[in-house]
Amino acid sequence: MALDFMKVSEGDAIRVAPDLLRAHVAGMFRACGVPDGHARLTAEILVTADLRGVDTHGVNGSIRYTEEIRIGRYTIPQELRVLSDSPATALLSNGNGLGYVGAHRAMEMAIEKARATGVGQVAVCDGHHIGMVAYYAMMALEHDMIGVAMTNSTRHARPAGGVEARVGTNPIAFAAPTWHERPFVLDMATSTVASGKVGLARRLGVSMPEGWVVDRHGEPVTTPPAPADHDWALNPLGGSLSLGGHKGYGLGVMVDVLTGVLSGGGYSGRLPAGDNHSWMMAIDIRQFRPVAEFKAMMDEMIAALHATPPEPGTDHVLVAGDPEAKTFEERSRAGIPLHRTLVEELRARARELGSAILI
Amino acid sequence: MALDFMKVSEGDAIRVAPDLLRAHVAGMFRACGVPDGHARLTAEILVTADLRGVDTHGVNGSIRYTEEIRIGRYTIPQELRVLSDSPATALLSNGNGLGYVGAHRAMEMAIEKARATGVGQVAVCDGHHIGMVAYYAMMALEHDMIGVAMTNSTRHARPAGGVEARVGTNPIAFAAPTWHERPFVLDMATSTVASGKVGLARRLGVSMPEGWVVDRHGEPVTTPPAPADHDWALNPLGGSLSLGGHKGYGLGVMVDVLTGVLSGGGYSGRLPAGDNHSWMMAIDIRQFRPVAEFKAMMDEMIAALHATPPEPGTDHVLVAGDPEAKTFEERSRAGIPLHRTLVEELRARARELGSAILI
Repeated sequence: MALDFMKVSEGDAIRVAPDLLRAHVAGMFRACGVPDGHARLTAEILVTADLRGVDTHGVNGSIRYTEEIRIGRYTIPQELRVLSDSPATALLSNGNGLGYVGAHRAMEMAIEKARATGVGQVAVCDGHHIGMVAYYAMMALEHDMIGVAMTNSTRHARPAGGVEARVGTNPIAFAAPTWHERPFVLDMATSTVASGKVGLARRLGVSMPEGWVVDRHGEPVTTPPAPADHDWALNPLGGSLSLGGHKGYGLGVMVDVLTGVLSGGGYSGRLPAGDNHSWMMAIDIRQFRPVAEFKAMMDEMIAALHATPPEPGTDHVLVAGDPEAKTFEERSRAGIPLHRTLVEELRARARELGSAILI
Repeated sequence: MALDFMKVSEGDAIRVAPDLLRAHVAGMFRACGVPDGHARLTAEILVTADLRGVDTHGVNGSIRYTEEIRIGRYTIPQELRVLSDSPATALLSNGNGLGYVGAHRAMEMAIEKARATGVGQVAVCDGHHIGMVAYYAMMALEHDMIGVAMTNSTRHARPAGGVEARVGTNPIAFAAPTWHERPFVLDMATSTVASGKVGLARRLGVSMPEGWVVDRHGEPVTTPPAPADHDWALNPLGGSLSLGGHKGYGLGVMVDVLTGVLSGGGYSGRLPAGDNHSWMMAIDIRQFRPVAEFKAMMDEMIAALHATPPEPGTDHVLVAGDPEAKTFEERSRAGIPLHRTLVEELRARARELGSAILI
């Protein structure tokens, strides 16, 4: 959910057309040796994150990924390999390349398996950053399936009761189709906030609400710390023990079990920054009950949630996916507001790589 | 996670032998016409909750369930029926009887399906209260599988930004096997606390931490309110919007999608108190990678989490399932400390029903 005080102000933003942005970013990847299909797929997922207002997981990532490719940390072109396979499951190696490519293929495979057996589950190892996890969960929607996507990451969050980061922000995404209402799309870090939000607060020069970050003594930190400084940790969702911090921590470890341990890629505590392993699931609704009935009940439930009387200071109660869908509609029409320094960086990187400058 | 200030004090407790308690409770159910197998199964699950220290979901429930049977709200004996079936999924009707029976059968079916296809998923409709959800998730452990169990319930928690309860406490349980360490067993309400904790605080006459409950204006409530009073709601896990209340709320709705909407039984907002629909999943680890390697990595991860430096006031960092496993060991030896008023109630109910008084 976007926090208003962390939005890029219109004065600092340049509105960019999504099509040109996709082409610009895909060109950057191609110029690094990424095959056209993989380049376009990755650009598509990055721009979708920007369109949905998930700016921390948008085209800003392309700067980092092209650098990882340049220094040889990613294997390009990458080769996806199925390491194990059963009617409803598979383990896929991402081939140490762009995380987006393996994660996308894993959800495609999960959907195929779900069509045949009712459920499909694919774990991905040898992976890297996969961006906005909601993208993969949402791939199930057009097939009238429920989609679930998770990924782990290096240590950012402290276990409840501890003072050192040992668990990743380990997000969970869950998407379910509807009829007339917007689809239900949950996409959440299992820490209080995603680590990108700390970086964004730092870039914008704003302080963070108490409860996001603690120091080595467990004391709250409100000035955004430097990323390389390891003397801080995110709180798990829930915060203190009496308010459920052990739950956010437990969910983070659950994600590690499904992504890192089940795939063999490794749990958060073993992962260097930039290594990420994933887990995708698709559930074929029609194997349980008629899809039309499922969707009608989804609509009814969402309408009832929207109709909840709001607390003072809140206009109306939202359902997961509402803010992102609204931003998607607005930015699809008016263009994506990128911070002008990011536009400069994207142009400079394209110049460096020799790809076309299209924004 | 047990909150110390909410424990029954030894002075108020009578230690009861688990075997006698099982037999006492099973006898009560049989005296209501419940078939022997269903009676023993339900008693077993209830006593396991007490052994694990989950007192809100233990044999105290038998008072309520025998009353539901007496007034004809439960159909006894119940008939389980498979309403739809695919290689990896099924929809099971609980036949409007004891929720425990259908939930247990659903996890058995999920395990059978997982052995055949890699994953099994069974949704349950026509259900009632299923108690401690961890029980079902843990059934997968001895099969070297990962188990997941969820159930929905009537409205207790407010959506983030709303002031009226519209979502159940909708718990999630997740269990994964280990080698030498205790298994990882997460069992959490998606609200800040389970509603039973409010009832327990009321019974014990203690006040609640700020953050558990709000009134109709969204203001915190610390005096435990009466259950029939609808002017309060639990907070979703995370609490306020800036600290992630929309995430706990989103997880609660996710549980409703899988349990209530996928099964057709209905989401929290439509459920009368005591109606609950469920969803079980088993994942066969060996379809992904060798079980021994999986378990060795689980052990390594858990040991690393335990080794996190603790914050001031915390002895050592725990992993989900630790407190319950410790309590299980202690109570298996020393007996289950039941509040003396509960022992009186269980004796009185047995007398009323004409079953043997064994505690």
